[in-house]
Order: sequence, then C-alpha cells, then structure tokens
Amino acid sequence: MISTPAPARSFASDNAAGAHPVVLDAIARANDGHALAYGDDPWTRRCEDRFRELFGRPVETFLTFNGTGANVLALAALLQPAEAVVCSDWAHIAVDETGAPERVLGAKLIDLPTSDGKLRPEQVLELTHLQGVQHHVQPGVLSLTQSTELGGVYAIDELAALCEVAHSMGMRVHVDGARIANATVALGDSVETLRAATVDVGVDVVSFGGTKNGLLGGEAVVFLDPELARRAPYIRKQVTQLPSKMRFVAAQFEALLTDGLWLDLARAANRTARELYLATRAIDGVTYDAPPVVNSVFPRLPPAAIAPLRDWCFFWDWDPTRHQVRWMTAWDTTDADVAAFVAGVRQVLADYN
Amino acid sequence: MISTPAPARSFASDNAAGAHPVVLDAIARANDGHALAYGDDPWTRRCEDRFRELFGRPVETFLTFNGTGANVLALAALLQPAEAVVCSDWAHIAVDETGAPERVLGAKLIDLPTSDGKLRPEQVLELTHLQGVQHHVQPGVLSLTQSTELGGVYAIDELAALCEVAHSMGMRVHVDGARIANATVALGDSVETLRAATVDVGVDVVSFGGTKNGLLGGEAVVFLDPELARRAPYIRKQVTQLPSKMRFVAAQFEALLTDGLWLDLARAANRTARELYLATRAIDGVTYDAPPVVNSVFPRLPPAAIAPLRDWCFFWDWDPTRHQVRWMTAWDTTDADVAAFVAGVRQVLADYN
Amino acid sequence: MISTPAPARSFASDNAAGAHPVVLDAIARANDGHALAYGDDPWTRRCEDRFRELFGRPVETFLTFNGTGANVLALAALLQPAEAVVCSDWAHIAVDETGAPERVLGAKLIDLPTSDGKLRPEQVLELTHLQGVQHHVQPGVLSLTQSTELGGVYAIDELAALCEVAHSMGMRVHVDGARIANATVALGDSVETLRAATVDVGVDVVSFGGTKNGLLGGEAVVFLDPELARRAPYIRKQVTQLPSKMRFVAAQFEALLTDGLWLDLARAANRTARELYLATRAIDGVTYDAPPVVNSVFPRLPPAAIAPLRDWCFFWDWDPTRHQVRWMTAWDTTDADVAAFVAGVRQVLADYN
Amino acid sequence: MISTPAPARSFASDNAAGAHPVVLDAIARANDGHALAYGDDPWTRRCEDRFRELFGRPVETFLTFNGTGANVLALAALLQPAEAVVCSDWAHIAVDETGAPERVLGAKLIDLPTSDGKLRPEQVLELTHLQGVQHHVQPGVLSLTQSTELGGVYAIDELAALCEVAHSMGMRVHVDGARIANATVALGDSVETLRAATVDVGVDVVSFGGTKNGLLGGEAVVFLDPELARRAPYIRKQVTQLPSKMRFVAAQFEALLTDGLWLDLARAANRTARELYLATRAIDGVTYDAPPVVNSVFPRLPPAAIAPLRDWCFFWDWDPTRHQVRWMTAWDTTDADVAAFVAGVRQVLADYN
Repeated sequence: MISTPAPARSFASDNAAGAHPVVLDAIARANDGHALAYGDDPWTRRCEDRFRELFGRPVETFLTFNGTGANVLALAALLQPAEAVVCSDWAHIAVDETGAPERVLGAKLIDLPTSDGKLRPEQVLELTHLQGVQHHVQPGVLSLTQSTELGGVYAIDELAALCEVAHSMGMRVHVDGARIANATVALGDSVETLRAATVDVGVDVVSFGGTKNGLLGGEAVVFLDPELARRAPYIRKQVTQLPSKMRFVAAQFEALLTDGLWLDLARAANRTARELYLATRAIDGVTYDAPPVVNSVFPRLPPAAIAPLRDWCFFWDWDPTRHQVRWMTAWDTTDADVAAFVAGVRQVLADYN
Repeated sequence: MISTPAPARSFASDNAAGAHPVVLDAIARANDGHALAYGDDPWTRRCEDRFRELFGRPVETFLTFNGTGANVLALAALLQPAEAVVCSDWAHIAVDETGAPERVLGAKLIDLPTSDGKLRPEQVLELTHLQGVQHHVQPGVLSLTQSTELGGVYAIDELAALCEVAHSMGMRVHVDGARIANATVALGDSVETLRAATVDVGVDVVSFGGTKNGLLGGEAVVFLDPELARRAPYIRKQVTQLPSKMRFVAAQFEALLTDGLWLDLARAANRTARELYLATRAIDGVTYDAPPVVNSVFPRLPPAAIAPLRDWCFFWDWDPTRHQVRWMTAWDTTDADVAAFVAGVRQVLADYN
Repeated sequence: MISTPAPARSFASDNAAGAHPVVLDAIARANDGHALAYGDDPWTRRCEDRFRELFGRPVETFLTFNGTGANVLALAALLQPAEAVVCSDWAHIAVDETGAPERVLGAKLIDLPTSDGKLRPEQVLELTHLQGVQHHVQPGVLSLTQSTELGGVYAIDELAALCEVAHSMGMRVHVDGARIANATVALGDSVETLRAATVDVGVDVVSFGGTKNGLLGGEAVVFLDPELARRAPYIRKQVTQLPSKMRFVAAQFEALLTDGLWLDLARAANRTARELYLATRAIDGVTYDAPPVVNSVFPRLPPAAIAPLRDWCFFWDWDPTRHQVRWMTAWDTTDADVAAFVAGVRQVLADYN
Repeated sequence: MISTPAPARSFASDNAAGAHPVVLDAIARANDGHALAYGDDPWTRRCEDRFRELFGRPVETFLTFNGTGANVLALAALLQPAEAVVCSDWAHIAVDETGAPERVLGAKLIDLPTSDGKLRPEQVLELTHLQGVQHHVQPGVLSLTQSTELGGVYAIDELAALCEVAHSMGMRVHVDGARIANATVALGDSVETLRAATVDVGVDVVSFGGTKNGLLGGEAVVFLDPELARRAPYIRKQVTQLPSKMRFVAAQFEALLTDGLWLDLARAANRTARELYLATRAIDGVTYDAPPVVNSVFPRLPPAAIAPLRDWCFFWDWDPTRHQVRWMTAWDTTDADVAAFVAGVRQVLADYN
C-alpha cells in the first residue's frame, strides 16, 4: 500500500485532462444568442483566418469533432479508388481506431514495421514494386504521426525526405497531428518550426489536434494545399463529422491559437514529462530506454510494483511483455502532481524492487 | 425596407440557438481535474442511469457527437448484410446527411414517397414482395423520424401499427429523434408519453436528440433492447463517434434529463411556434396549410416579400415552387422575439401583398 | 390445361438462352494450351482492338464477368467522394442489383421517378439545387439504361440532350448497355448508329452487354474517354471482376464483334418479339400499351389466364396490379417458338377471357 | 541463348492452363436450349448435390465467378460489424486482391507475420488482448489458405488446433481453398482427407477452387454449417458474384466432382511439380529450401540465369532479394514439358553458374 497522497491529476493520458479556463471561457462567450449552424458564423470564419495566419498561407481548415474523424476526413479527401494508406504499424489509424479507415474509406492500410513508430523513406520506396500491378492496392497517401504514438518526433529533415519520396511516387502526405503542438515544441517551439515541419517540407494535409492540448473537444483538418480541399465540405458531412453548432468548436480553436496558447500548453506538458523522467530515472528499479521527447515517458518497472502503483494512481500498460508502462502528462499537470507521483513511485519501489 | 427592429434571435433553426445556461454550467462543473477518457467516468455512468430512469428499463445508451453520427451508429447496429433501411423520402438520413448512411453502412435506403414525411404501415407492407428475392435488398430496418422533417408527429397508434408491421416482416425499428422532445411535448408532455411512443409500441432504438434542444452539442443512441447494443461500443468508435472527453457530453445530458429540463425546453419552443402561427395567420398574404404541431411553421408568402423579410431576419426556404418558407423557434425564443418578428412580417406584407 | 405443345424455348428472359454456337466454338478454340492469366494474352488484345474498331476511337475496354460487376466498375471509375449516381427509379442498378452499388461504391443512388424508365433532361437539371450544399450528395454520374428496363430506347437526340445537361452540371455519363445491341438495332441497326448514340452524343463509359446477346457469360466496360480509365485496372480487381482465364471472355467477345454477329443476334431477338406482338395483339383479352421496341413485350392478360399459361411455358410477372406480364425473346427464339407460344395463348384465352 | 526447344506449356501458373476436355464438353452439353437464369436450373441443383455428397453433410454451396469473389462472399457472410479478418501476411486476400476485402467488406485484415504462410494457434491466441476493447477491431474470422500461397499445406492437426483456438475466441473459420484439391492430394488423396481437413476439424466455410484445377472459370463457396449461409444468396448478388447463366458454372463443377476428376487433376499437377524438383535439384546452381508439397517449386537461381531462362519460357519471380523464382505446374503439364524445361535449365545454368 502506498501511504503518500496521490497526485491531484493522474498520469493516464492527456485526454484525461479537462479544458483550459481560457478555452472554456471562449465557449461561454460564444454562447451568445443565435448563430447560423454548420459553420456559417463569425467564430468559424475567424478560426479559419487564424489557421491561415498560423501557416502563413491560404490553407483551408475543416473543424471536426475528434481525431479519428479528422483522420478519416483528411484521408478520404486524398485517396483515389483502389489506393492504400501507407503508415507505421504503430499508427493510431491502424491500431486504435477500430477499423474506421477501412470501413469509412473502404481502403487498405499498408502498415509497415517500425520499432519506434517512425517510417523510413526506404520503406516507402520499397513499395514501388506494387505500383502499376493490378493485383495490388496502389500506395496513395503516406500518413505520418507527429509526435508518434511512441512519444518520438520526426525531425524536419526526416519529414522532408519522406515527403520527397512520397511525392516522387505520386503519393500525397498526411500528418496525424493529434499532438502536433507537443512535437512543435520539441522541434523548436515556434510558429516557424511548425511551418518548417509541415508546409515547407511538402506535407499536404494535417490533422491538427486540439482535444489533447486543452480543448473541451475539437480537431481541425488543415489542407495546406487548398486545391485538395475541393470535396472536403461534402466529405466532412458524409463521414459524420460536421458539427452543427460549429461556433463552439471554432471558439475553442480561436482561443487556442491566440497569443500562442497552443504552444504554452504543449510546452507545459512536455516540461513536466521531462521533470517526471528526471525525478524517476534515478530510482532503483525504474529503467528507461530513452529520455522523453514530448509529454510521455515509458518506464519499465518491476512487475510486482505495477499493480499497486496503478491502483493508487491510474496509468496504462504499454508493453506488458517488457513490464513497460506509459506515464503521460497534460497541459495542466503541475510540479506538485509530479512530486506527489514520484513520492509514490519511490515508496512502491522500495517495497517491490 | 423594414424599419422595425429585428428580433434578438432569428427564426432560422433550433440549432442556431446556443446552450441553455444550466447545460453550460454543467460543462463548467465537469471541467474539474482529470477523468478517464472514452466514457470511463462518473458523468457518463450517471448519464446512462438517467436514461434508464427515463425509459424505465435497462436501456443501453451510447453518447455521440451529432445526429448523423447517432443515426449511422444506430443503423449499423441493427443492419444485417444486404439489408436496406426503409424510410420516408423526406427523411433526414435520406436527404440531408450527404449520403453518410450509404457510405458508412454500405446499405441502400429505400425511401418511400410521403406527402407529409410520415410513412404508412401499408407502404411498408408492400415491400414484402422484395423479401426472399436474391436480386433485391432485404428490408431490414424501418427508420421513422419523430417529430418529422415536416414538423408533424406520428401518433402513438400510428407508431404501434408501423412497429407491428415492421416486426411482423422481421425488421427492426429505429426512431430518428433529433426532435423527440418536441414530439413528446406535442403527444402528451410527459415521461409516460415518451415511453408510450417508444418502448411500449416496440421501437428498438432511438437517436435521442440533444443539440437542437439546448445542448452545446451531443446526441444519445438509446437501445431499448439492450441485446441489440452488443456490438455498439466497437461500432461507435468505428464510425468516428466516440467522444474522447466524454464527460462533457454526459454532463450536458445529465443536466438536460434533470428536473424535466428536456421537456421544459421543448415545450417553450413549441409554445412560441404556436404563438408565431397565431399572430401571423391573420396577416393578409400569409397562408398556412396547417397549424404547427411542434416548433416550426411553414407559411406561404407573397414571392416579393420573402427576400426583404429574410434580409432583415434570416430564415430558410422550404418549397420555393409554392413560395413556402420555414420559421423555426428554439428553446430560447422569447415572446419579444415573436412580437418583433411579427411586426416585421406585418410591415413587409403591407408593402408586398 | 393447355393441350398444344409448349415451345422449345420459353419467353422468360434473354439470359435463359445459351451461347451461340460460334461463341462456344470460339471458347473451344481458345482452349489451346497455356496463356498468361488476367488479360495478358492475344485474345484479350484482339478483343480490345475490336472494340476500338467498333467505336472508331482509342477506347479502353475492361472485360468483366457480369452486368452488375460491369456497372459497379464503370461507376467506381467515374465517381468522386460524396458524389451520387443519378438514375431512373426503374434502373437495374437501383432495383435489381441487391444494393451492390451502395455497398461497393459507398455511394447514394438518386433514383428519379419515371413512368417509362427514361429520364428527362429537366429532371436532371432540377438537381442543380443540390450542388454546392454540404448537406447533400453531389450529382456525379448520370446512368442511363439503353435499352431501358421497360423495353424502350432513348432516341439519339434524347441522349444528346441528357449528356449535354449532365456535362453542363459537371457530371459524367454512364450507359448501362446490358441490351445495347437490341437498342442499336432499334435505332438504326448499324455500327454508325452505335457511335451516334454513344461517342457522338458524349457518353463517357458504356457497360456493353454480352451475356444477354449470345455469350456464355461476359460483359465489357468500354471507356470512350480513355483518360477516365486510368484507375480502372485496379478497380476491376478490387470489385472482384478480374477474370483469371480472361482469354475465354475475350474470345467470346471477339466472336460476337466479328462480321456483325452482335447486331445479327439482337436483330433476331427484336424481330421475334415483334412477331409475337403482332400475333397476339389481336387475341381477345390480350392488351398492349404499345408495340415492342426491342426484344420484350408487356401484355396485360385476364388474371385467371396468367397462372395456367405460365405453368405451361414460364415467364415473369411485370406489374401484378395491372395483370401485366413480360414475354421476352432471345437471339435463339425461332418462328416456331413464337407460333407454338401464340397457339397456347390463344387456347388459354379462349378458356379464361 | 537457349537452343533446346521450349516446352509446349509454360511453368508460369496453374491459371495459365485452359479447361480440361471433360469440363469443356460439359459446358457444350449444358448449352442446350433455355434454362432459367441465376441458379434455378437442374445443373445447379445437381452441382449442389455433388457438394453435399463430397462433404457428406447438408452443406450449402454458392457458385461464383472467381476466387476473390468467393473469398469476399464467404467473409461477408461470416463477419459482424467492427470485426476483422485474421490471416497470414502472405494471404491472397491481404496481398493479391487489390484491397477487395477492405473495400467490399469495409473490414480490416489483421495480417500476422509468418515465414511460411502458415499461421500458428498461439499467434491467434495473442489477439485475445484486442477483445472487448472498444478502440480495436474485434477478431471475427480466421482465414487460412490451403494450400498456402507459399506452396505448403496445413496438416490436419494444425488445422484442428487453429479451429479450436478460433472457436474458443468466438471466431469463425474460413478456408481459402483456391488450391484445396492440391492440398487434399498432398494430405492423403481422398474424399475422406478432404472431410478430415475441413468439416471434421470445424472449418465453417470453404472457398472451393475450380479455376486453377481444370475449369474454364468458377469457384464455389461451401458453407459447411448451413445456418451460416442464411444471408449468402443476397450477399452473393450484392458483391457482384451471381452468375446469370449459372448452368455453365454448375456444369463445370459437376464434371469436376464426377469420378474423382478433381483429385486426378490435382494429383497430376502435384506429381509433375515433384518430377521437376527431382530433375532440377541436382543441377549445379539450383538451390531449394525444401521439396514441393503441392504443384509449385521455389528454386533459387544464379541471378544472371533468370532473365534468359524466363525469356525462353515464362515464369514469375518470387523473392527477388534471394533470386528465388516460382515454377508452377498445372493439371495439363506433361512429362515432356518437364523434360523440355529441365533441358533448358540445364543449358542456361551451364552458361551462367
């Protein structure tokens, strides 16, 4: 039993956090009388402008409810018949979306093996042997997750090389950016970094995450090439992702993109993950493969320690065969949360190591 | 030009209204620290209990983002391969969801002709000739909209007759209840009325609307027969409708189902629609086919009057060939809104009639 | 009871007939050792050339197994996401393909009401109100059946007008030509007629029927605009319509397109249908709305006469509410078959009229 | 250059062979006047009876055009919403069907890594961690290929163990038996062997191959549990696999299942593959990992020898990284073909080894 008090906030997931007060306030202020539904409102227009400012070009933005919906919309807009989506075998679209892409898109996902969730250009290039053969799906879209499902990030030159290979093969490039803010902080912590890692390297469309970074709920599909968005309005409704009272999603994003809040929140989450890592790596029995890059750490623990620790403060398993778990911070994780959690880890490991 | 001041709220749609203050307050109160995502939280459990109390039986409830998503989830759970959904030719699923059912379900909609958006049992019965013939889709689910897209309601005995025919043919029955609260008010204004018009007549699953009745956003798919919900958890995620921070949808519904707020809001909307009808039917040039049943009226106007009136206070066309428009009230429409709007109608008709 | 001997061949359907001897012989001759599968064989290349000669331009031809498969392949190649197929409410794709288009294409069919199975340009034009509205599927492909399911044909100027409207709305035009040979005979009985009714009026792709016109089995999807065929090789396999031993389908079509056999067979079927009409229209109790245009007649009969006549020589009901049936001739129907059948009709009507 | 004469038949594939004379004769004999379409004919009824005799139980058989169509029909009949098909990463359905399963079924394929194309029970068992988790597709059908894409066969006890695991997890079992005749010969060469490897071990449905074993074209989906076939008639048409003139497919299978022709043809193909192996394994420069089990051998050759040999007598590459090719025999491969081919191999290897 752990006698020290549990932290106020768990380390289960960044989507266990609520909404940032500024975001909630933006919703409350948007709740002002009537506004036309389905995006024909000033909040949505302002939000779209914010994304144009963010990316520094006439991007087309489509707000959606959630990440699976954003990914499905983006991919549907990019795919041609009989094309496949190429992704990592750790990709959220391949593993954690209950087959939504296959069902809604009717398309195969070619999930290539990766040890770290990051595709390599040569893996994509190898798919050339599928091209032009009528018995095989044709590689159509390369989907990269940034930051990855394993807590890593693609470096800008890695993205550039992947985009180049994909485009040379006639493919389009999608970034699943459910945590693109965390990745941006890790890569340089600026709007310029975001642009360098997306528009500048040739990414075609981004699922720009909001829910995991302080929103009540909402994601944005940003078409960096506006031409690719031509059919997106219809597709969004068809894949069930057109918000009726859209002003409330738009107002959230407007708040998030104002005064760099999106970077502030991701920076905070990344920082406490690093604090957690630094404070626990020295504890006997806690082993890390690598320091955190964004807002999650993946320690290995003595098997007997995992259950009591989780009973005390919930988190998820990662690789049970290696007794590896995931601790994830959020925009609202405090230093006190980290300290309280570290105290519990220390106590349980004293018993079970 | 209309010189009288426009009402504070338009008569465009009930989804142009915002969230009721109690609902917004429930969201703010739910924004309290961390809670596990995807429904494993106390708000969701309480919300599910509220639906069990509402229907008086162990129903299974699945919260979703929007109405199209709710309908698609409900239908996916009910359909067998090569079955079709039978609905009216005015059905929202057939006309206003950009083909989401066909794409996500891979199923045909058999949309039967109706003048008032209400199916008749004998129309369903006629489909018996399709049954057992391998060249035809098999009628699998009967989908009824309550209240209808044309502002009417199915009477309880009409529902009973339709359910009986459908079940006798081996079909399941779905109710698209985006405005089921308004219908319930019209049919008897009580929880007992709701039960009489759903569980008691044999409806299998209801898309229970929230967004058009005072929520920020959220719908609930309620399986009145829990056995039919067996695959619904997976289907919900697969059709992109699993809310991550579900507590915020659950908290809204919890508020809506507390102290009869859901009936209060629908009653208010129905009442102002009736007021609007009573105040305008006597104006020269305004013609009605019938009094309103729920929260919309469908006047015919002199053609020249429509544009100036709409420029002054927005509303949608309904049947342009008959110069028929739709004025819709919401939970927040006030008597002052009605009075202001009626003044404008009176003024414009004095000019254009 | 009918005492006169039944005809050797029924009047049930043209797909109740077998293969023409020349076609069967072509199969036997193609059964000569090994040939690469999936179309990489000389028969397929020659067959493709025959279609280029037939249409007088560099069309791209894709052989398939059956008509439903041909239609699905053609439509999949023409549709964009969230687009719909516009067709008549009598269309085979809408009524008789068990929802294959909805399932395999994930697309809605907008089936417009027609009394005779023939769409009118103004009906298509009315769909303009759907265009650009995100809540509605977008009209993408106009699918016309030639000859129609009701035994009529579109005149060339009717086709021209429909193609013009469709193209002006940004749509593509598909012809379901399961019986295009019969239609061609009716419209002018020449290769020039075929071209006038397809390429010259702007049809984009044709499902060119073979099975109902003397083949053992096989259909051809002919892309009159080769650019539209770009993805067809992959789509054909994806929709399960790539024949393995394709030489046997190709050899059949090669035979059919040699020395005008395709017109000869259709002409024979059309002729015997006309003979049947002429011989039966004078019989008391047999009523026709119109003379036949292709190879089917649709008489109304005294109700009591239908069952005994069918028991004696099978045919299908058409409109039971009007006691209307369908008698269909095939490429192999003989004058003796007609005479024998007419004798039976005469006998049964003498009893039951 | 190879100076010795090439064999009359290549070693490219068993679907490069034509139809067996008895099969072709059966088609010609079935071409006798009219027969109702879509399976309502005596040939189809007799064919269904033959399958009942073959399996010794009241199986339900659905004839289809090709293997992809057979697999899609079988899987569609077995899958529930949000379920996945579990298969090997070498599975034809995963690799060689251009994504037909994903498109037509809307389902994910979980393709597990195998070195030899054969799944192990423990691999299937590991998927238990997906069960009951709403974020993951649910394993629904286990699909095994017999013989495998790599020329191996599952032993009967291997099949029994896989079926047991699958059923214990609530899954159904499908066998892709495009070459089930070759596998049956390898496992014991009798009808009893077939039953032991299918019905007796608990397989639920078999795609029973015909095209690669002497037919002109045709496959059969055999539901060993008739209850599972309940929706199959509608699904077959919906997935475009309902043959119109079905008697011609049925007549082929009737011939194939008469007097053990199906085993005779597969035995002949297996035998010549073994002859080819025995005659080439001793040639310097030809390396085999293993002797053949069915009708294909997979030699590794000196890189420079491959192109001239293929130019002389076509065959396909298998694993270019290992310079491994595939030589496949068919029902009609003769000893003279083998001898001629071996002479060529010997000659080219004398030059290039």
